Amino acid sequence: MKSYFRPEIDAIAGYVPGEQPKMADLVKLNTNENPYPPSPKVAEVLKNFDIARLRRYPDPTADALRDLLAADLGLKRENLIAGNGSDDLLTMVFRAFTAPDRPVAVFEPSYSLYPVLAAMQGAPVYRIALEGKDFSYPADAVRQAKDANLLILTRPNAPTGNCVPRETARRYCEEFDGIVLIDEAYADFAADHCADFAGEFPNVLVMRTFSKSSSMAGVRLGYAFGHPALITGLMKLKDSYNLDTLSQEVAKANYADKSHRADCVAKIIAERERLIRELLLRRFTVVPSQANFVFAVPPDGDGAGCFAHLREHAVVVRYFPGKVTGHGVRITVGTPAENDRLLEVLTRKYPC
Amino acid sequence: MKSYFRPEIDAIAGYVPGEQPKMADLVKLNTNENPYPPSPKVAEVLKNFDIARLRRYPDPTADALRDLLAADLGLKRENLIAGNGSDDLLTMVFRAFTAPDRPVAVFEPSYSLYPVLAAMQGAPVYRIALEGKDFSYPADAVRQAKDANLLILTRPNAPTGNCVPRETARRYCEEFDGIVLIDEAYADFAADHCADFAGEFPNVLVMRTFSKSSSMAGVRLGYAFGHPALITGLMKLKDSYNLDTLSQEVAKANYADKSHRADCVAKIIAERERLIRELLLRRFTVVPSQANFVFAVPPDGDGAGCFAHLREHAVVVRYFPGKVTGHGVRITVGTPAENDRLLEVLTRKYPC
Repeated sequence: MKSYFRPEIDAIAGYVPGEQPKMADLVKLNTNENPYPPSPKVAEVLKNFDIARLRRYPDPTADALRDLLAADLGLKRENLIAGNGSDDLLTMVFRAFTAPDRPVAVFEPSYSLYPVLAAMQGAPVYRIALEGKDFSYPADAVRQAKDANLLILTRPNAPTGNCVPRETARRYCEEFDGIVLIDEAYADFAADHCADFAGEFPNVLVMRTFSKSSSMAGVRLGYAFGHPALITGLMKLKDSYNLDTLSQEVAKANYADKSHRADCVAKIIAERERLIRELLLRRFTVVPSQANFVFAVPPDGDGAGCFAHLREHAVVVRYFPGKVTGHGVRITVGTPAENDRLLEVLTRKYPC
Repeated sequence: MKSYFRPEIDAIAGYVPGEQPKMADLVKLNTNENPYPPSPKVAEVLKNFDIARLRRYPDPTADALRDLLAADLGLKRENLIAGNGSDDLLTMVFRAFTAPDRPVAVFEPSYSLYPVLAAMQGAPVYRIALEGKDFSYPADAVRQAKDANLLILTRPNAPTGNCVPRETARRYCEEFDGIVLIDEAYADFAADHCADFAGEFPNVLVMRTFSKSSSMAGVRLGYAFGHPALITGLMKLKDSYNLDTLSQEVAKANYADKSHRADCVAKIIAERERLIRELLLRRFTVVPSQANFVFAVPPDGDGAGCFAHLREHAVVVRYFPGKVTGHGVRITVGTPAENDRLLEVLTRKYPC
C-alpha cells in the first residue's frame, strides 16, 4: 500500500509507550513520578465542580492559571504559555524553531524525546557530549552547537541528575545565536534554578512542569516563560484550546497549596540523600543528583544486569542502553518504604 | 530584535482566541456548543475520583476509551486514535500529510482552521468553491484538488450546515490519490454519516469530537479512525501522553450514557427545525442544516448588520466576513428559551 506520510514520518520508529507493568505489589521507580498525591484541595475542586461548565470551551489561553504562575516568577501573563504537559510545549518549540535548515543542538545524554521531535521536523541534531563520569558540561558547547537555531539545556539533566553551573548556563545564553530552551522539569528538587534568565535574555525560554514536584503527571500541565515576542510566536502554534477546563481548575488549586508541595519536595530530597548514601554503601557509583532520581552505576558496571535483577523482584527502574548510559540505571526516588524495598533487593546482588 | 522563528510562523497572523463576551444575561450562540450539560454520570466520576491517581502518567494510548469507541463502530482499538480535542488530531494530520511539496485541498467555505494549519507547514492550499446558494459540492472536486496529498471533507459542513451526499463523498474517496479526512464533528445531528468509509478505504480517516453532541467542549476530546497503517503513523506524531487521566475517565462515563446523549441530540434537532421555520417566517434564507447550527441570510443580505443588531441585544452569533459568507450569520441552536430570545430580538429588525 502506498504511504501518503511525509518521508520524515515514515522514517521514525513506531511509537512505544512507556512501560506500565501490571505486576501485583510492584515498586514503580521508572518514570520520575512523585510518590505523594497532589494537594487535598484537588479533591475539593472535583467534588464541587459544576459539570455543566464542561459543555463550554475552556479558556483558550488559561489566563487565571498563567496569572498565578507568572506572579510567582515576577513576570506577567504575556511572558508565559501553558501547555498540555511539557510535551505539548516541546512540540511547539520544535515546530517554531527547527527545520531542515534550522538544526537543534542537544547534550548527550539528555531527554531522549528531543531527537525524535527533531526527526519529525527533518531537522539535523548536533549532539554535545557531556564529559567524564560526572557528566560535566563542556566549556565550548556553543562552538559545538555550530549553526543550530535551538539549544536545549536540561537543568537538572535527565537521566544523570546533575546541573550545569548557573554561570556556565548564563554564558551559553549570552554566546548562543539562537533560542536557548532551559528545561527545568526537575528544578524544584535542585539547589538553584535559572528562571531569572527568561527575563534577562530575549532568546531564552524556561520550561517547567506539574508532572514532578506537583504530583500531577496525570493532569498534563507544563508551562514556558520568556520574552513576550517568543510567547506570542509560540501561541500561534498552540492548539486553540489546548488545556481542558478541569486541568486548569485542579492545577490552580494544587499550585496554590504551596506548603503541600514544599513538604513533598522536602521528603523526596531527604530520601534522595539517604538513597545515595545507601547506594554508596553497596559500592555503587552515584552522580550527585539535584533531581527526584539518581543515576547509579553498580560495582560491576552492568546496568542491564542491575535492571533485570530488580525487575525480577518486582522493582522497576529505567535502563538506557548504549555506551554512555548502559553501565548504570536511573532510579526514581520513592517513598521510604519503596526505597527500602529497592535497597533490600539490591543488597541480594550487591552486598554492603 | 532578531526572530529565530521559522519564516512560515512569522508570516501567520497572531492567535486570536474566540470571543468569550462577559456581558450579563448573554445568549451565547456563536461556537456551536451543546446547550445541555453532559451526563450526570460525569459528576459521579468526579466525586469519587481518587486524586492519588493523578501523580501517575495517564494511559498514553487511552486504550479503554479507544476500545469503547471502536466497538460501537465495528472497529478495533488499532483503528482508532484519540486526541486532545479534534484540534490535536488535525495538527497531527497536517504534520503527517502536508509540506511545501504536499498540498492540501479544502472546500470553501469550510472550517477556517484548515488553511492556518497548512500555513504552519508551508503547504499550498487548493480551495474548491462550493456552488450556489445551497453550497453544493462540485462533481469535479477531485480534479480541482490536483496533486494535493490531503483532501478535507467536513460533513456536515461548517459554517453552512449542509452535507455532501454520501455517494458523492464515496466517489471522492475512490478517485482521490491521497488521504481523505472526513471531519464528522457534527455527524450526530445529521441524517446519515460516512463512518463506514474508514473501514472500506485505506486512504480515508474519519474524525469525530466530544465537543458538540457529547456536551464536552471543555474536556477536549476528539478521535479519528481508519486503516491501522494510518493510525500507527499518526501515533508517531502524538504527544506521548496527550490525554489526561480525568479526561479519559469522564469521557468514558459520558460516552456510555447513550440515552442522555440521544435525548440532547433529539431536543437540538427539534429546535433546529423550529428555528428554521421561524427564520423563514422572518424572510431569512436558510441553508437546510444537518448540524447543530444554521447558516441564515437576512432579507437585506447584510450579515454584518444582523450580527451587530443581535450583539447589541446581548445575543452573540458568528459572522464570517467575505464575499461567500458575509451576507449571512451562523447561529448555534440553543435551548428553547435561548432560541426564543434570539427570535424575539430578530423580530425587531426583521418583522414577520
